Amino acid sequence: MRAVVFDDRLRFSQNVPIPGIPIDWARIRVQFAGICGTDVEILKGYQHFKGVLGHEFVGFVDQCGSPEWMGRRVAGEINVSCGSCEWCKRGLRSHCAHRQVLGIHGLNGCMADYCILPISNLVRVPSSLSKEQAVLIEPLSAACRILDQIQLAEHERVIVLGDGPLGILCAWVLSTVVSHVTLVGHHPHKTDTARWRNIKVVHGVSESLYGADVVVEATGSGNGLPQAMALCRPRGTIVLKSTVSTAETMNLSPLVVSEQTLVGSRCGNFEAALNLLNCHPDMPLRRLITAVYPIEHAKEAFDLASGSDALKVALSLD
Amino acid sequence: MRAVVFDDRLRFSQNVPIPGIPIDWARIRVQFAGICGTDVEILKGYQHFKGVLGHEFVGFVDQCGSPEWMGRRVAGEINVSCGSCEWCKRGLRSHCAHRQVLGIHGLNGCMADYCILPISNLVRVPSSLSKEQAVLIEPLSAACRILDQIQLAEHERVIVLGDGPLGILCAWVLSTVVSHVTLVGHHPHKTDTARWRNIKVVHGVSESLYGADVVVEATGSGNGLPQAMALCRPRGTIVLKSTVSTAETMNLSPLVVSEQTLVGSRCGNFEAALNLLNCHPDMPLRRLITAVYPIEHAKEAFDLASGSDALKVALSLD
Repeated sequence: MRAVVFDDRLRFSQNVPIPGIPIDWARIRVQFAGICGTDVEILKGYQHFKGVLGHEFVGFVDQCGSPEWMGRRVAGEINVSCGSCEWCKRGLRSHCAHRQVLGIHGLNGCMADYCILPISNLVRVPSSLSKEQAVLIEPLSAACRILDQIQLAEHERVIVLGDGPLGILCAWVLSTVVSHVTLVGHHPHKTDTARWRNIKVVHGVSESLYGADVVVEATGSGNGLPQAMALCRPRGTIVLKSTVSTAETMNLSPLVVSEQTLVGSRCGNFEAALNLLNCHPDMPLRRLITAVYPIEHAKEAFDLASGSDALKVALSLD
Repeated sequence: MRAVVFDDRLRFSQNVPIPGIPIDWARIRVQFAGICGTDVEILKGYQHFKGVLGHEFVGFVDQCGSPEWMGRRVAGEINVSCGSCEWCKRGLRSHCAHRQVLGIHGLNGCMADYCILPISNLVRVPSSLSKEQAVLIEPLSAACRILDQIQLAEHERVIVLGDGPLGILCAWVLSTVVSHVTLVGHHPHKTDTARWRNIKVVHGVSESLYGADVVVEATGSGNGLPQAMALCRPRGTIVLKSTVSTAETMNLSPLVVSEQTLVGSRCGNFEAALNLLNCHPDMPLRRLITAVYPIEHAKEAFDLASGSDALKVALSLD
């Protein structure tokens, strides 16, 4: 099958074997796959992953032991848990000690004609969602995760740092529960894309932004945290979204002195994302798709996704 | 008066003017003052402080507009707030935007014959507490602060990193509410000092410690956080206590992946510390005092406090 492979270099292959499925797993014929900042970090060494890349997709179940799933249009949660370790038993399946993560850790990803996942990871994608919307369910669920983790009062002032797709999705999600959301970016065409509901967009920070109740760090770089600490009020909350391959030099003493709380935030629940879309069908997800490339042109797609001009770059497998 | 001054170098002076007091302030004749890790960091540039050092003391009110405080034996909370800024109005007085902090920021400290503080910062120290115990009320209240910030269930596993006075005080305080507290240190004579109640002490980390529900980082260095992240369970809590002058190189991606929460924790309420001592009069505070020097020998005292052998080094002004 066709696939985008990383094995010390990024390459397109036509000769990757089609995967078989264990019991209770499904094979999915991938229709559309997104390139995430994490994929770009993997190329720099993040998670030391080797194999088929990709964890954002929409596709159709192609092989599966459960007839009711056959042919269904699906997306899939990316963490595959063992079900028997201490964390699984304590209900923390997405933190399973032996987990595989689609296209990130121990499991080939979705930038291929076929990928496999446990049936329990699948969610049905309604036909009302286009493939461009559906491929964003994974990052949208990651944005929704913030709502599980912190209590937000409607009057609180929220700042999102980062005008990439995840930053914009976080701003959109948060704007559905609080009135004052400001997105801080540096690229006018991206911040323009972010405008929705009451969201205020600014280029760079100014004094009026200081003292925010909540700051979401979604810059995708390792050096956004010092700015987040500076913008957040005493005893405020910083949500950290960026995962990066390289270490940064920083001093966390201001976080101690201001008694801020830093919350690490990763994947979310796909049903929550679908519910949110159901309540807010006008969320302009389609705007986030900068370009679509046929999978054969994956290298060009990654080049575009690695630069600062693009939002979401997708691969088509039709 | 006699005082320990830092103005690019540490020196003992006999010629510092005795401070006058504004309305509603008190002047305290200092009896006993402690050297804290923060004082040692100030010598390296932390907070760019210049002036009389010291923020841990016990003494007697010597001058004051309120007769009921005259002659009282007191300790004092170290943050002096303006009462009118946004944070003060929101009840966050210890985070006042214009605050002075005794011996740390904008206000001469207590390593002197006299120091001054607002009357509202003072707490009476009962005669049942020795001066060696009383000088530890400030760091004990900082340890108690953790109990205000996080919810702890009795069965949760807590690790404290750091066998300095603050680490040991954190372990002692936490051992009054949870059964499983482990203090990780590197100096046998310090970890021996930490033994109290059910506290387990270990030298360095082993696999059995991984997966702790709460990890308190009180190493006093900027590089304890990566170890705290490694020891803490997914979705667990790390309390960050260390404030340091220098930046460290680190990658916080593991905190994001494991969705840990990092809580910056600073000063606490002195009444809470006194209440805890009242409930646990057997807390062996006296053990933490490694040495007492007359203030004239402050440089030797700081030399000892800066090394890894000492716990609390105090200065006597009697």
